[in-house]
Amino acid sequence: MAQKGLLTVVSGFSGAGKGTLMKRLLEKYPESYALSVSATTRRPREGEVDGREYFFVSVEEFERMIREDELIEHARYVSNYYGTPRRYVTEQMEAGRDVLLEIEVQGALLVKEKYPDALLLFVTPPSAQELERRLRGRETETEEVIRRRMRQAVTESKAIDCYDSILVNDDLETCVDEMHALLRSRHYAVERNAEFIRRMRQELAGRQDEQTDPE
Amino acid sequence: MAQKGLLTVVSGFSGAGKGTLMKRLLEKYPESYALSVSATTRRPREGEVDGREYFFVSVEEFERMIREDELIEHARYVSNYYGTPRRYVTEQMEAGRDVLLEIEVQGALLVKEKYPDALLLFVTPPSAQELERRLRGRETETEEVIRRRMRQAVTESKAIDCYDSILVNDDLETCVDEMHALLRSRHYAVERNAEFIRRMRQELAGRQDEQTDPE
Repeated sequence: MAQKGLLTVVSGFSGAGKGTLMKRLLEKYPESYALSVSATTRRPREGEVDGREYFFVSVEEFERMIREDELIEHARYVSNYYGTPRRYVTEQMEAGRDVLLEIEVQGALLVKEKYPDALLLFVTPPSAQELERRLRGRETETEEVIRRRMRQAVTESKAIDCYDSILVNDDLETCVDEMHALLRSRHYAVERNAEFIRRMRQELAGRQDEQTDPE
Repeated sequence: MAQKGLLTVVSGFSGAGKGTLMKRLLEKYPESYALSVSATTRRPREGEVDGREYFFVSVEEFERMIREDELIEHARYVSNYYGTPRRYVTEQMEAGRDVLLEIEVQGALLVKEKYPDALLLFVTPPSAQELERRLRGRETETEEVIRRRMRQAVTESKAIDCYDSILVNDDLETCVDEMHALLRSRHYAVERNAEFIRRMRQELAGRQDEQTDPE
């Protein structure tokens, strides 16, 4: 049953482990998934590669992409644009891969408007205590950043009801398996197998005709 | 995230391998699933055990169960009643197990009316040819029975659109894994995790209050 890929939006608290989760999912099932790369007008940081972390484009180019409807969603943070180029998403879905978009709540809702079939997935650690422990564990963040992230989590937690599914990322491998199960399952929906069902009906009716032919 | 169990109705062509599929699923995950046992007024066949294949009851008892709303659904075939006792289903769901009901299309739709959350799952072999091959492979069926089953499959195939999901039972172990993934995934729905989400919000807000307390 070869099918087109489906779109999944992944959001969650900073510190929920979304990045590691998606990286591991892609490592385990490279043929099933593709990770969308965002476009941005901010400058690349050291070590960032164009087309890997982001597509780094000029403000003029980004505004042209908005005008020509080349972005599924976009937003402006501080003085930088961020957005999801439509082309890669469409190409990967046509190739049968489920596309993962890591974006925040506002973007998620915009994607759902344009792609009602998209699954909105929220990833969370098992508790607020564990969230804070992970943020502190990074050891690269200042106290101020940790506090800001925890405040942000309060706001984000209010939006969970807009999502379709929630996964608790306690043990990474378990969560990867759950995410894979969840995303594969959508392909078993009857409406996504219309072609198979049509063929099956035709075959059954065909064998029926053979059997009732006068001998 | 301890949750109540969910209801799954399993239908499919005779010869699709539903019985083997459910048996294997229960063997692999005995803690996750329970198989509903139907009540019937027909006489037990040789080897059938009361409470295992069916609950064998009298017509008077069955009609009492109908009157007192103890059945989720029931139907009459030829001169026998068949039905799904509510009590076992409810008990198992309360214990956190997903309950599987193997019933045909009409019953499936009745269950969906009473339990809108129930998943209606249709199981099919990969082709009509394979369906016939399996029916013939049993070697216990007469030509007449095989032809009747194939005619029945034509009718049943028209009802697939009433179902939520479809699984192709080509390789048994693959199909068991797919079924498990499909049924587990329903537990990740946001609306089924309201209690976890409520607690998470509370914890996050609590930590927030601590941090903003005057020192």
